[in-house]
Amino acid sequence: MSTSSSLSVWIAHAQAQLDAATRALALRCASGARIDGAKADAWQVPSYELAWAAAHLLAARTLDGWLASADAAAPSGQAGDVGDAGNGGAMAQGLARLFIVEALVDVIARLEAMQMDLGLDGAALRAWAADAGWLRLRQQCAGQDAQKALGAAVAAGDADFGAPPLSQDVRMAFESFARFADEQVAPLAERIHREDLTIPESLLQPLREMGVFGLSVPQRFGGIGPDDHDDTPLMVAVTEALSEGSLGAAGSLITRPEILSRALLAGGTDEQKTHWLPRLAAGDPLCAIAMTEPDHGSDVASLQLRATRTDAGWVLDGAKTWCTFAGKAGVLMVVARTEADRALGHKGLSLLLVEKPSTEDHAFEVTQPGGGRLSGRAIPTIGYRGMHSYDLSFQNFLVPHSHLVGGDAGRGKGFYLTMQGMMGGRMQTAARACGVMRAALRAACRYARDRKVFGEPLAQFALTQSKLSRMAARWMACRHAAYAVAQLMDAGGGRMEASLVKLLACRSAEIVTREALQLHGGMGYAEETAVSRYFVDARVLSIFEGAEETLALKVVARSLLEGALAGASTA
Amino acid sequence: MSTSSSLSVWIAHAQAQLDAATRALALRCASGARIDGAKADAWQVPSYELAWAAAHLLAARTLDGWLASADAAAPSGQAGDVGDAGNGGAMAQGLARLFIVEALVDVIARLEAMQMDLGLDGAALRAWAADAGWLRLRQQCAGQDAQKALGAAVAAGDADFGAPPLSQDVRMAFESFARFADEQVAPLAERIHREDLTIPESLLQPLREMGVFGLSVPQRFGGIGPDDHDDTPLMVAVTEALSEGSLGAAGSLITRPEILSRALLAGGTDEQKTHWLPRLAAGDPLCAIAMTEPDHGSDVASLQLRATRTDAGWVLDGAKTWCTFAGKAGVLMVVARTEADRALGHKGLSLLLVEKPSTEDHAFEVTQPGGGRLSGRAIPTIGYRGMHSYDLSFQNFLVPHSHLVGGDAGRGKGFYLTMQGMMGGRMQTAARACGVMRAALRAACRYARDRKVFGEPLAQFALTQSKLSRMAARWMACRHAAYAVAQLMDAGGGRMEASLVKLLACRSAEIVTREALQLHGGMGYAEETAVSRYFVDARVLSIFEGAEETLALKVVARSLLEGALAGASTA
Repeated sequence: MSTSSSLSVWIAHAQAQLDAATRALALRCASGARIDGAKADAWQVPSYELAWAAAHLLAARTLDGWLASADAAAPSGQAGDVGDAGNGGAMAQGLARLFIVEALVDVIARLEAMQMDLGLDGAALRAWAADAGWLRLRQQCAGQDAQKALGAAVAAGDADFGAPPLSQDVRMAFESFARFADEQVAPLAERIHREDLTIPESLLQPLREMGVFGLSVPQRFGGIGPDDHDDTPLMVAVTEALSEGSLGAAGSLITRPEILSRALLAGGTDEQKTHWLPRLAAGDPLCAIAMTEPDHGSDVASLQLRATRTDAGWVLDGAKTWCTFAGKAGVLMVVARTEADRALGHKGLSLLLVEKPSTEDHAFEVTQPGGGRLSGRAIPTIGYRGMHSYDLSFQNFLVPHSHLVGGDAGRGKGFYLTMQGMMGGRMQTAARACGVMRAALRAACRYARDRKVFGEPLAQFALTQSKLSRMAARWMACRHAAYAVAQLMDAGGGRMEASLVKLLACRSAEIVTREALQLHGGMGYAEETAVSRYFVDARVLSIFEGAEETLALKVVARSLLEGALAGASTA
Repeated sequence: MSTSSSLSVWIAHAQAQLDAATRALALRCASGARIDGAKADAWQVPSYELAWAAAHLLAARTLDGWLASADAAAPSGQAGDVGDAGNGGAMAQGLARLFIVEALVDVIARLEAMQMDLGLDGAALRAWAADAGWLRLRQQCAGQDAQKALGAAVAAGDADFGAPPLSQDVRMAFESFARFADEQVAPLAERIHREDLTIPESLLQPLREMGVFGLSVPQRFGGIGPDDHDDTPLMVAVTEALSEGSLGAAGSLITRPEILSRALLAGGTDEQKTHWLPRLAAGDPLCAIAMTEPDHGSDVASLQLRATRTDAGWVLDGAKTWCTFAGKAGVLMVVARTEADRALGHKGLSLLLVEKPSTEDHAFEVTQPGGGRLSGRAIPTIGYRGMHSYDLSFQNFLVPHSHLVGGDAGRGKGFYLTMQGMMGGRMQTAARACGVMRAALRAACRYARDRKVFGEPLAQFALTQSKLSRMAARWMACRHAAYAVAQLMDAGGGRMEASLVKLLACRSAEIVTREALQLHGGMGYAEETAVSRYFVDARVLSIFEGAEETLALKVVARSLLEGALAGASTA
């Protein structure tokens, strides 16, 4: 049995054990045939482990599938026989195997904790841990010799190995945006971060011309997206490439127009589509999304900003927070409560488009002849600078009737329409994490080659090699998972998987940037070293576009438990 | 058998297995009767695991010893029966047990990896993992029910539980500096960080009056330290208390005078002691330590800054970096190469005292009539602001003969004299980590009580409770280990243990501040929220005063391997 097919067997074994634990957990969280919120809350601790185990298995399975194809293309590739920095090649295959084994070790540990809390028998898990074939495989793929050989090869290169399978179009887009990020974005990134500037027009204008803001707008509406289907891998590729230059100064530009464009496509009137989509696609105006409120982060159903219908239009009153790019934006998509009945929850929300002047100022105020007022203040943050996230306050602020998305038919559909773009937002966040990871990995490799300690380049030390191999393996796994889920989404699925890959990639970006900084020693802590920016930038990823805890529990675990319950009841 | 005595048995079991793995590793790293540097380098990966496993076991053993005494005082205390926020009490005992079990789980994982790389039989380890008594104990002490009950109790309080055994004097000092930190330091901390200011005289002057700078200067030389012994727990307590207010604006003030005072006590001439010690104790002048060089971080033996003897004095030429507080300092302790023979390595180094004007500027230049020049530039960093770390450049800079520490007898002793204060520096860094952790834990508890999501305070959710229990347990473990090692040092030992506790506490501070930030959601990423500062501050801890990798490999693993080899050869 080849190494890869052995890995497949163990992945399946892990999945079976996780499925069994999921079923047991689902029964404890169920009232009759459905998952009971209060019961599920009591079981959050194993539910959280479940989500993380599922995230690791998703990435492991994706790489395993890729290995099967790469194995076919390069049958002689073996872990240990490294050095080929081609796209498949022995090094990339070795890194894939390293990740798979480490992911399985992680899953075993999480299963142990789950089985303990669920009172399940752990004999099968322990038999696995003691299996001679598994121990050999683990040693071969993830022992110190494999790590050292892989890490030495990683250090010698420039993180240009192991790309996931991409279409010709997507690969070309990635390359052209990567070039732009390298030549135009990266040189400005430090200054934008340290002086807390707004992304300058010198970056925005060429990006407008490259079509960045129209990626999710179909060609018939002036964008560059296909008319008849989504192209999520393309969005992922562009975001990933730009994020490597800078998370704040380029990598996050697509998310907002995607959310608004998708909302308009799904629920806008024909007039609204015709008016807004070409403008959004052109990046003129730029846009921002005002959803989160000061007292309601992840809890959308409780949003309170009120929109009251008057003859003159809708009148907005209330506060929003973390509205990214609100200063520079010329139009805000505001999620507002248009329906007075509070019991409607998220079904009482609608979308209103608020036009405002674009500004690079950190504070702004818009006043209306009738006394309406909108003020904004950029919240200073430790990283993710360039776009600025604003506190917004609406007072008696009038919005024309024409700016209610979907017109009267759109009332109550605000949550649903926002969600159209949210999965894409999660995918893009995974992509942003991958871009930041690659930047950190490349910086770490360069430094490890150049810096000498105790008379040798850092890259010569076994511990450095071990760290680099694991960073590289993690980055590769997240990339592969991100593109695989992007394809799944375009085939109509992937809702839960988008959250899984967001979880894994964002946490991985924290880990990889932490290690890259640590490899730099004191220099890594200096603002003049790019890796210090990657570290603080990466920290936002597990918070925004769905906080880690919310995604793990409310999206992933909930979905897996419901699936397990449905399976159990039909079995 | 009581829970605690069972834990003791498993700790001993873990230690025995780690000892066996250490012996096997030592034999692979040995040439004859000594550890061979090149061979040890080839085995860095398992050596690194060894160091971390030893660090976890040290903390587990310390808490276990404390439990034995606390058990005696409160025999009814059981894990699960929590809520008493007294100093011992069921909650603190429960947290201690939680940490011990999680530390053992960590050690098992590291032993597995070591045994794999060393080709050792893992049967005993697997038998442990399958032992029914262990599984019951793990479930009882670290299962979700224990975590939830402990976390709820932690959230309700203010992190004032589970203090290690301290003398009356140390406790009083801790309390009075904690009050100062709370009332005077914390209110200024955000501004000092965000405006990158130097610690103002309004903080330094009361600290001078409280004797902070004379803690390691004996009373006979004008300090407040005992004349006849060290009081490391006192230093740890003061540093910990001040670091809770701010790492950069207060918590790190003691390290520099300690290093210089100890060097002078160990090797200064009588005149130097009489002249300098009372002044250092009074904090007038303040001092800084110039050791690290741009091309030599952890590699002291290769330091290059040259001091050339002339009739007029010593002439310094060369560069230093990361010289913290060099601007505000009136005297620098410079580690310089006084001996021309490069083969002498660290035996060619001496200490010179360089007087300079104190300044709060981020850049300074001192020129001498004879053309000598010293320039400094503060390196901007992502955190740990308030003292500033400087690049220094010495050009033809003259220092009087009287400023060579120890006079001619001090030549070649620079490394040895610096090391006198380094162990203390590591202990203080562990203490700083504990202070930052407590600040983050308290902030997390406050936020978890106040913030509502989905209609409930965050603190009511099982996942929040789980996280808080583990953060609190980790903080308690690091504190106990720090004070225990401080006592060990005063009894003449603790060299390796100081590195172990530095490793564990600094990494723990990264983990605890990360989780505290995450609990705050978006607010945690805002500069206006203190937890964002704790997060960036904590990141420096694993880098300075001995980088993680250097301490783990060159101090801890080396020492354990040499010990194992000596044990094996005498056995």
